[in-house]
Amino acid sequence: MNEVITEIRRAGGRAARKKARQGGAGAGDTGAIWPGVEGGTYRPLSKDDVEKVHRTALDILAQVGLRDATKRCVETVTGTGGQLTDDGRLLFPQTLVEDTLAQTGRGFPLYAQDPNYDLDPSSTRIHLGTSGAAVHIIDSETRQVRNSTLQDLYNMARLADALPNIHMFQRTVVPREIEDPRLMDLNTCFACMAGTKKPIGTSFTSAANLDEAVKMLHTVAGSETAFRARPFLCVSTCFIVPPLKFAEEALAVIETAADQGIPLKLVSAGQAGATSPAALAGAVALQTAEVLSGLIYLNLLNPGHPALFGALPFVSDLRTGAMSGGSAEQGLLMAACAQMAQYYGIPAAVSAGMTDSKLPDFQAGYEKGYTELMSALAGANLIYEAAGMYGSLLACSLESFVLDNDLIGAVMRATRGIEVNDDTLSLATIKDVCIDGPGHFLGHDQTLERMQKDYFYPDLGDRTTPQEWHDQGAEDLLDRARERTRELLAAPLPTHISQEVLAQIKAEFPIML
Amino acid sequence: MNEVITEIRRAGGRAARKKARQGGAGAGDTGAIWPGVEGGTYRPLSKDDVEKVHRTALDILAQVGLRDATKRCVETVTGTGGQLTDDGRLLFPQTLVEDTLAQTGRGFPLYAQDPNYDLDPSSTRIHLGTSGAAVHIIDSETRQVRNSTLQDLYNMARLADALPNIHMFQRTVVPREIEDPRLMDLNTCFACMAGTKKPIGTSFTSAANLDEAVKMLHTVAGSETAFRARPFLCVSTCFIVPPLKFAEEALAVIETAADQGIPLKLVSAGQAGATSPAALAGAVALQTAEVLSGLIYLNLLNPGHPALFGALPFVSDLRTGAMSGGSAEQGLLMAACAQMAQYYGIPAAVSAGMTDSKLPDFQAGYEKGYTELMSALAGANLIYEAAGMYGSLLACSLESFVLDNDLIGAVMRATRGIEVNDDTLSLATIKDVCIDGPGHFLGHDQTLERMQKDYFYPDLGDRTTPQEWHDQGAEDLLDRARERTRELLAAPLPTHISQEVLAQIKAEFPIML
Repeated sequence: MNEVITEIRRAGGRAARKKARQGGAGAGDTGAIWPGVEGGTYRPLSKDDVEKVHRTALDILAQVGLRDATKRCVETVTGTGGQLTDDGRLLFPQTLVEDTLAQTGRGFPLYAQDPNYDLDPSSTRIHLGTSGAAVHIIDSETRQVRNSTLQDLYNMARLADALPNIHMFQRTVVPREIEDPRLMDLNTCFACMAGTKKPIGTSFTSAANLDEAVKMLHTVAGSETAFRARPFLCVSTCFIVPPLKFAEEALAVIETAADQGIPLKLVSAGQAGATSPAALAGAVALQTAEVLSGLIYLNLLNPGHPALFGALPFVSDLRTGAMSGGSAEQGLLMAACAQMAQYYGIPAAVSAGMTDSKLPDFQAGYEKGYTELMSALAGANLIYEAAGMYGSLLACSLESFVLDNDLIGAVMRATRGIEVNDDTLSLATIKDVCIDGPGHFLGHDQTLERMQKDYFYPDLGDRTTPQEWHDQGAEDLLDRARERTRELLAAPLPTHISQEVLAQIKAEFPIML
Repeated sequence: MNEVITEIRRAGGRAARKKARQGGAGAGDTGAIWPGVEGGTYRPLSKDDVEKVHRTALDILAQVGLRDATKRCVETVTGTGGQLTDDGRLLFPQTLVEDTLAQTGRGFPLYAQDPNYDLDPSSTRIHLGTSGAAVHIIDSETRQVRNSTLQDLYNMARLADALPNIHMFQRTVVPREIEDPRLMDLNTCFACMAGTKKPIGTSFTSAANLDEAVKMLHTVAGSETAFRARPFLCVSTCFIVPPLKFAEEALAVIETAADQGIPLKLVSAGQAGATSPAALAGAVALQTAEVLSGLIYLNLLNPGHPALFGALPFVSDLRTGAMSGGSAEQGLLMAACAQMAQYYGIPAAVSAGMTDSKLPDFQAGYEKGYTELMSALAGANLIYEAAGMYGSLLACSLESFVLDNDLIGAVMRATRGIEVNDDTLSLATIKDVCIDGPGHFLGHDQTLERMQKDYFYPDLGDRTTPQEWHDQGAEDLLDRARERTRELLAAPLPTHISQEVLAQIKAEFPIML
């Protein structure tokens, strides 16, 4: 046995060196998993179900429509076949929806500042990362709940940068010490961008703030042309006040992003039972209709503009009205929305990993585990909220990132599935071992080879026996997580933006970090 | 909002009273979930993959065969077309396998002492429960690791009895204080049977011990005829020493169960990379072949005898050789084996929820969450090891049962999926609300109705906001779990076996409880 382990460790070293020579090791490709593992083996909706949801969404858009469209939006949509009712509902006829959908942006990458971390959110390829607008930080050791800060946001961006299974970083927490919306938007964007070279995302409270941030993005990219060629920010916009009302300022953000060539995550976040139907199918249909309305408007402004399908029906606990991000119903809703996005051929942006728990405990583990797995197996291209979030998105935990990195690795491995071919079916190996061989598979070449290719090994997850664990001090997973987090944050600051560019930005913009 | 909640609570009370009148409330049917929820929306293996695994299993049986068959087994199998090689391998030709499979037991229930808890493990209907042979109890509060006892086993049976989402109770821990195998087998069987009225399972170290236990089972059932009509015990037998060797004494247990009309769980538990191929597809093929060999023998002894398909490829962490029950690969292997069982139309018995962690912590939560979900979504009929197990089956935790009960509820709700029809698609409701209505769904009839039917509410899982949680004392989930466990164990002892019968058994058998 010991010889086998030594050989396996040696082989591991060789594989790591080979990978380092080829580059890309930092992108999380450990052999067993890689960004863009393909899902799609789980189909909560049948093909017929998907068609029914689509037809219902079309009916909602054509028969109910959306209120509170801006003048420009009304003119754009009615100028192409839409209709405004006497009571102010903007109706989208079926042909308008279908014709516009045909020219929607597809097959585009999500760029990173470092091209090694670009993502391809097509087909059923999955990627996981962060998102949220939490207002609290919970310290799992002291159980103190405090306001989140800009420094927290930057630290989280750095953690996401260092952890291989977190593939993108959308803003996680609101810097509560900054009250002015302009300062908040600019500093939030800066903290994400400075903290990680991976694809980033954030939102803007106004088009003017986005316009100002764009100048900062151009500076980092080197020029407007360079940024437009590889826009490394995705603007997330909740452009819907559900049910079926537009958010005026968000429509202006969409218009600005369309002008500036910035990818959009078009989000409609209803709460089933409150702002969306309690019936799960209805919530999927309503949020689908709402996202389609934004896609139509965006594509009338700029045909083919890159946009993510962010139909996000959240769940209310109907006993209290509070959101329940960790529920099984939540997992189902997101997996179903991923199928709708796939039906339209548009990258699916979903939310999973939103536990209701306040601490990284058993409840948090299973709620994150099953909700992330459902979206992943369904092939959701971009799974947000998958690291750090607690209390149904109200809170964030720094020490959770390293734990979530392990969980995401396992979810990706599960999603990769089982390859079935003559080699993996192992008839020859079984004959080797059982007819003339040693009667076990430990030393077989296949075992060594598959150990590298097929098995994911967690970083913090503990696999000792109960006796070993006890004899080694019965260590707590959270203690290890805190220690690892401190180590990662004590490492040198990221250097993907040069000191010169950082100084230039700090001279030109009101950066508070 | 408050009116809505009051109305929902009232409706909840009505539903509970109605259910109580109809009976069956104890069977875990809360409206949103029920034993036998149908899975099958997740297919890790394609149809072609399943065929390939089946053909490989046939090749293994025909070309490699199994060693160490007993004389009776060799005579039975060679008498029907099998062949013994010069080096002692018993080969099963394809026609023998296919002809015998055609008459295998299908569509049988798993009986409980109380018929309200009978299970129907057919199609892709799922049920979850316990199993294992842990030797340690870990106290999550003191972190002490101690030997498990008969009293622990009985207490766990009582917890399973009380918790609605645990549908069956197979022996969880070994009573370490009992060294004599006969005393251990009889007392283990008694503790399960006395602790719960739900379907039970255990294993026997010898056919003689099973024969003696059968007398006890007849006493409880009232007569041999009554027991044979509704055998409420399923005998789990690891009849394979992988790879491809029979366990002699276990073949005798199979023979006795076949005589006595007792359902069998035919288990082949390999460890991928050690006693089974490291390639996942090969592990599934090998364990499938091994279980088929047992099914063939059993059906030659007693055609149509009820047996579960227990192909259980476990995972080794190839760095250490230790088992890793919580890995993603483990989740995949079991889901794939469930598909193989479905291919043969035989109830699938799988293992999920086997965390590598030693405590009910974040790691335990996610490992249990994703492994149970994968088997459930794949439609595994009987998901064992789903409550209580830690340290890759080496340890068990009493306080985990109440936590696992919540997790299983969520897994069942996820598996139930999304019903899509005109009512649930909610076009009419959306029109009601958005065109002439209040602009939200809170007070709508549909919301009230769906709150009962569609949403699962955890018992211990916490959904308060971070601020509420903090203000209420930042309570620990494990503290609540311990308290609930103490409450359940402080309740009156079960009465499904009368005092008279218990006294009779204690007079006739060496019961130590």
